Amino acid sequence: MTDVYLNLIRSTLGSRTEPNTAQALGQPEAECDRLTKKIGIRQRPLVSDDEYTSDLATRATHQLLHESGIEAASVDTLIVCTQTPDVLMPGVSSVVHGRLSLSKRCYAMDINQGCAGFIYGTQLVTAMIASGMSQRSVLVNADCYSRLIRPDDLTTRVLFGDAAASSVYSAEPRGLRVLYSRCYSDGLGRDQFVAYNSAVRADATQARGIHMDGPGILGFALQAVPEAIEQALSDTGLTREGVRLFAFHQANSFVIGKLTQKLRLRPEQAPQNCLDLGNTVSASIPLLLQQQVPNLAPGDKVMAIGFGVGLSWGVLLLEYVG
Amino acid sequence: MTDVYLNLIRSTLGSRTEPNTAQALGQPEAECDRLTKKIGIRQRPLVSDDEYTSDLATRATHQLLHESGIEAASVDTLIVCTQTPDVLMPGVSSVVHGRLSLSKRCYAMDINQGCAGFIYGTQLVTAMIASGMSQRSVLVNADCYSRLIRPDDLTTRVLFGDAAASSVYSAEPRGLRVLYSRCYSDGLGRDQFVAYNSAVRADATQARGIHMDGPGILGFALQAVPEAIEQALSDTGLTREGVRLFAFHQANSFVIGKLTQKLRLRPEQAPQNCLDLGNTVSASIPLLLQQQVPNLAPGDKVMAIGFGVGLSWGVLLLEYVG
Repeated sequence: MTDVYLNLIRSTLGSRTEPNTAQALGQPEAECDRLTKKIGIRQRPLVSDDEYTSDLATRATHQLLHESGIEAASVDTLIVCTQTPDVLMPGVSSVVHGRLSLSKRCYAMDINQGCAGFIYGTQLVTAMIASGMSQRSVLVNADCYSRLIRPDDLTTRVLFGDAAASSVYSAEPRGLRVLYSRCYSDGLGRDQFVAYNSAVRADATQARGIHMDGPGILGFALQAVPEAIEQALSDTGLTREGVRLFAFHQANSFVIGKLTQKLRLRPEQAPQNCLDLGNTVSASIPLLLQQQVPNLAPGDKVMAIGFGVGLSWGVLLLEYVG
Repeated sequence: MTDVYLNLIRSTLGSRTEPNTAQALGQPEAECDRLTKKIGIRQRPLVSDDEYTSDLATRATHQLLHESGIEAASVDTLIVCTQTPDVLMPGVSSVVHGRLSLSKRCYAMDINQGCAGFIYGTQLVTAMIASGMSQRSVLVNADCYSRLIRPDDLTTRVLFGDAAASSVYSAEPRGLRVLYSRCYSDGLGRDQFVAYNSAVRADATQARGIHMDGPGILGFALQAVPEAIEQALSDTGLTREGVRLFAFHQANSFVIGKLTQKLRLRPEQAPQNCLDLGNTVSASIPLLLQQQVPNLAPGDKVMAIGFGVGLSWGVLLLEYVG
């Protein structure tokens, strides 16, 4: 089976910034202070009025192709992972494909995943390349959850940032080698995170937008994530100390702190970037990896862990090859 | 590389039926008669008031598992292809996963594709199985376009039916072997088929729902589909006569007739089922295959061709193995 490498990641943020302050949020100062201190998020990028997921996805992918010198025509697979598409049809991938003049011989498709979407998407493109169906795949993780946040839902609003990351994969041994991936689902927890009245189902009993059962999701994360990491360590024969970095989905600082504690990791093993980005959904892990790659040495192992709506979660093990 | 087989297909239709009559459509009789005669669709299944894509997808998959004797726990990959999800998050796959008590060790995800979705989805699960990441994958193609049809848009309304098909794939040599698949995209044609105001982008200049450029889509289909078929025949070394069946996406009788003519196929090589089903989007090809498989003999080749919104299209070559 062909080895697969994540060669390069580029990203972009929503054009404006919303600070988590009483003034910006129009909420009591004490409440804002308490929340932002707990979650460790002081501001978040948001899309501007005329900016959508397709704009973020196109910008990140344009930058990726431009900086890597990859010809658009050589991309044979384009996967856009989003839960906030501009429209239900066509997908965001069609917009990116058209705007960047990709080849007609390209497999272009949207996938729907939330905070586990980088793991799910990487497993998909790894399968495409390993099976010989793709030579060069681009995975875009892009969302603007702000379009579905209810403005008065302070506990959700202070969390999410709008961003996109675009990653290119191939059999060329540069960047991060995909050593292992495993994805999980639990549809019994599907009601813990729902965007009501967001697509074709009308529900008169619910306000339009995201409804998150915070304690439920937290309980799930603190249970499922350590189990999946233990499974990954066992499956790959590694110890915690054998992993240089644990790239957790940047849900918020509180969750990452709890996971770090529960797994008895050193804090420097679990870097964070949510202070000024917030929770950027499935883009959060590639955003973090893009920042961290310059600090890696060949042979370093990175474990990436996504978890969220679905419920869905997954673990990826990567090795930096230079 | 592991060979992959489409072992079994089961399907379900929306619970009510809308005839293409003047009375049912509330439109002039002469106009309805002209349209239905041209497109060869006399009635279509539609979802009832309280029925959604998740209901169709669950019903088809329940039937598939029940009739095949496959244990739910053995399904390690569940892909739901839809453009009309109940909500933007979580995906329909989470609902099906929860309702049918699938395993937590399941890769469950929605993909967004229209009438090319069976080809795209089959290529995806083929990659998953061929690369060893899946042993048993279920692909569900499910949509209720009726939720996005503008009632006064007669030319679109008379076309689409609501249905779901659920297909199981594995390395077990039963059913249809996947010999070849190739998918195409053209994002430059993305404006030819759009559901405005259907997700997060608000467009005050457009009515909510599906807007289809009929002549544009027809022109695309008559150009792209024959080319893709010629490419597939060339790639696989087959002649038209070496293919027992061409399972065209059942757009409508007019389109299939034109394609059959242009490709100089015998009418019996291109079976149709749209008379009482209409265009059931990505479910149309598996619905047709389910009907046709009992007539096949081992060694028979079937070429399936999907095309539609995106623009997206693709060709699949299958061989019946008994």
